[in-house]
Amino acid sequence: QLKLELNSLPAIDVGDYIAELPPEDQAITFRLLSKDQATSVFEYLPPEVREQLLGSLHRAEVCHIIEAMRPDDRAVLFEELPAGVVKRLLQQLSPPERQATATILGYAEGTTGRVMTTEYVRLRQGLSVEAALSKIRLSDRDKETIYYAYVTDDNRKLLQVVSLRQLLFSIPEVLIRDIASDRVIKTSTDTPQEETARLMKRYDLLALPVVDREDRLVGIVTIDDMVDILEEEATEDIQKLAGVSGGDEAALSPPYITLRKRLPWLLANIVLYIGAASAIAPFQHVISVLPVISVIMPIMANSSGNVAFQVLSVTVRGLGVGEVTPKDTWQVLRKEVLAGMGTAIALGISLSLLSLLWAHPTERWVAPVAGLVMVSNVLIAAVAGTFLPMALTRLKLDPALISGPLMTTMLDGVGFMLFLSMISLGVRISHFHV
Amino acid sequence: QLKLELNSLPAIDVGDYIAELPPEDQAITFRLLSKDQATSVFEYLPPEVREQLLGSLHRAEVCHIIEAMRPDDRAVLFEELPAGVVKRLLQQLSPPERQATATILGYAEGTTGRVMTTEYVRLRQGLSVEAALSKIRLSDRDKETIYYAYVTDDNRKLLQVVSLRQLLFSIPEVLIRDIASDRVIKTSTDTPQEETARLMKRYDLLALPVVDREDRLVGIVTIDDMVDILEEEATEDIQKLAGVSGGDEAALSPPYITLRKRLPWLLANIVLYIGAASAIAPFQHVISVLPVISVIMPIMANSSGNVAFQVLSVTVRGLGVGEVTPKDTWQVLRKEVLAGMGTAIALGISLSLLSLLWAHPTERWVAPVAGLVMVSNVLIAAVAGTFLPMALTRLKLDPALISGPLMTTMLDGVGFMLFLSMISLGVRISHFHV
Ligand SMILES: [Mg+2]
Ligand SMILES: [Mg+2]
Ligand SMILES: [Mg+2]
Ligand SMILES: [Mg+2]
Ligand SMILES: [Mg+2]
Ligand SMILES: [Mg+2]
Ligand SMILES: [Mg+2]
Ligand SMILES: [Mg+2]
Ligand SMILES: [Mg+2]
Ligand SMILES: [Mg+2]
Ligand SMILES: [Mg+2]
Ligand SMILES: [Mg+2]
Ligand SMILES: [Mg+2]
Repeated sequence: QLKLELNSLPAIDVGDYIAELPPEDQAITFRLLSKDQATSVFEYLPPEVREQLLGSLHRAEVCHIIEAMRPDDRAVLFEELPAGVVKRLLQQLSPPERQATATILGYAEGTTGRVMTTEYVRLRQGLSVEAALSKIRLSDRDKETIYYAYVTDDNRKLLQVVSLRQLLFSIPEVLIRDIASDRVIKTSTDTPQEETARLMKRYDLLALPVVDREDRLVGIVTIDDMVDILEEEATEDIQKLAGVSGGDEAALSPPYITLRKRLPWLLANIVLYIGAASAIAPFQHVISVLPVISVIMPIMANSSGNVAFQVLSVTVRGLGVGEVTPKDTWQVLRKEVLAGMGTAIALGISLSLLSLLWAHPTERWVAPVAGLVMVSNVLIAAVAGTFLPMALTRLKLDPALISGPLMTTMLDGVGFMLFLSMISLGVRISHFHV
Repeated sequence: QLKLELNSLPAIDVGDYIAELPPEDQAITFRLLSKDQATSVFEYLPPEVREQLLGSLHRAEVCHIIEAMRPDDRAVLFEELPAGVVKRLLQQLSPPERQATATILGYAEGTTGRVMTTEYVRLRQGLSVEAALSKIRLSDRDKETIYYAYVTDDNRKLLQVVSLRQLLFSIPEVLIRDIASDRVIKTSTDTPQEETARLMKRYDLLALPVVDREDRLVGIVTIDDMVDILEEEATEDIQKLAGVSGGDEAALSPPYITLRKRLPWLLANIVLYIGAASAIAPFQHVISVLPVISVIMPIMANSSGNVAFQVLSVTVRGLGVGEVTPKDTWQVLRKEVLAGMGTAIALGISLSLLSLLWAHPTERWVAPVAGLVMVSNVLIAAVAGTFLPMALTRLKLDPALISGPLMTTMLDGVGFMLFLSMISLGVRISHFHV
């Protein structure tokens, strides 16, 4: 009963079910799966469970699963496993599968070569539509997609692409060369994964051919894997903005990984903040005389920080999804400065009014000064929050390096210095008048 | 030459090209396109350009384009256009296309019904594979995908699904009912778009059937549109975290839209900050005596804010992508508190040490107090940053309502109150000793 159920449910659901079982039941349950289902489910198990299963299954069972996995999924598995285990498993693979895995693992992490699969449909230009359809029907069922076929010459140089839809809608006698499209949208093994994913999203493709430096077809990437990459990149953008570094952190990461990804930024930032705090320190005597400014400064810092996060989130995300590129710097800057002026005036007036809440009647001159500095901070946030990520992108660095924490520290430093200098001047003038 | 080029380039590239032309050249260039290409390109033009083109093209040209558009894309267009124009265009549509558009526009914004298309392949269970393939070959080429076919009864009740791949790999005489799968993964017209998109991502599907409340098949959604939805949702999450409200803002939005999305949050926050600042105001005399604490408070506020953004970004994103649900509250809380304890100790010690930089020898007792409050703020950030988004999700509200700005304001208020109370107590004790 359970066996029947496990073999008919989607593999990812069975994977989740097994992952939740106590470790001692996992192997027993996994053995209830048919060979095909076992291979599919294996792909969806968490790394720890996979490694444990590899230890407790029979050698023949392991061999079968590893052999039947798709090359891209197998490469992901091998990345997780200890080198010794990988070596042993590689030896047990059939030569073509071993070759496919070695090819993929030969490309650098983060490149398209690392996430492609080497199983795809390849056709020659001289084939008829009918022959092509028979070839597809007789081919290995393994192919990740049969909805596109790639047309190459004898050296695997990529010439054309044809969809199964085109094949089905064509007259059987027509030659492939006459119906396939010459404008092939393609990517290369060295292209960053994110760029390839954006290309697929832009052109609404289900699969994309991957060529090597000699323009030879070496693999394809499929939309399901690219969707995962886009999601990871979005998570990375969100987290970098908030100062969580080193790739995306999951909500259920172990605490020490969490610490490793967050603490360095926090400590670096608190050290940097010595600069901002040093802008206050020399003015302690002014604060003693006029303690209301210690009420105002945190409001100023908080509001400036909020503006910085807003500007950064929009600019960094715009760069991330490719809505804007460094070429648009002036256009985005113009928009942010215009919106920034509105924001600056609104926040400047608000801060001035709030300052009056706490200022003694003789201290009211502090209010417009606070408002002015608020205006300046908002405009700096607008300019720096747009310009710095754009400049980093132009330098081929990650725009998200300018995280929110970094910007707020900078704004606090500049704002405090400006505010306290002006206040100190004001105090001297008012003393002079008295 | 240009004409040839424009008709063979991908529609989205031609759309971008036309959008960049001066307005007076847009209609002329658009007229160079073949009917098919014109329809495809039209979909990718920005709303302003579309509306302008609708005004300058001949009535017959407009009719052709609108008639040939896919129902889902047509619905998007109609959402943008003034009601009067929509009414006129609807009247010019053929009855089936008009019906399809009316159906889609009948569903609420944000639901799956609003982004589905009504053109799909539907088969009966009694058909043979061969007959099914012929039916697909002879069908309208318009269908958004022919790679899945949906099997229904006479009342359109969804029974099974079969892929074109299964059809091609089956014996021609077999009946559809015997090869199609009974476990249909489906969504409903009322399901939020984001949920539908996550379902497709989870099961690696290229299209998903949409049923109405009576379980009748009314449409399908396709992966290309779902990828766009996932990206929009990620952008929304990033921006909400940073306090940009009301859907995703583009980097090139007009300044007044930018202001409308950002200013309300900023003003609400500065008003809320009256609370936090009020925690400082009554202690102005303490600050007069001990101005070093005005150097320490901004460091405390900034570091607490950074921790809050980190915790929120990970939790809100984890909820957003479905990695965690409110059921995991305790597990996530446990992890955040453990990591938070490490963070608290590190930041507490750092802040204490930094305080010594600026404290006079007689004021050194301030340092450990600052450290303690930092510890408390970090732990509050860990607990509130996990618990509040989880609770909001459980209440079916958007977890991103707890934005970073809101959390930092709360933390500042609590931290200042605690710090200044303890300092004030310390000052009294030390005066007593003197
Ligand atoms: Mg294989
Ligand atoms: Mg797209
Ligand atoms: Mg897959
Ligand atoms: Mg794959
Ligand atoms: Mg996959
Ligand atoms: Mg990345
Ligand atoms: Mg990125
Ligand atoms: Mg149609
Ligand atoms: Mg998936
Ligand atoms: Mg569509
Ligand atoms: Mg679309
Ligand atoms: Mg939403
Ligand atoms: Mg959302």
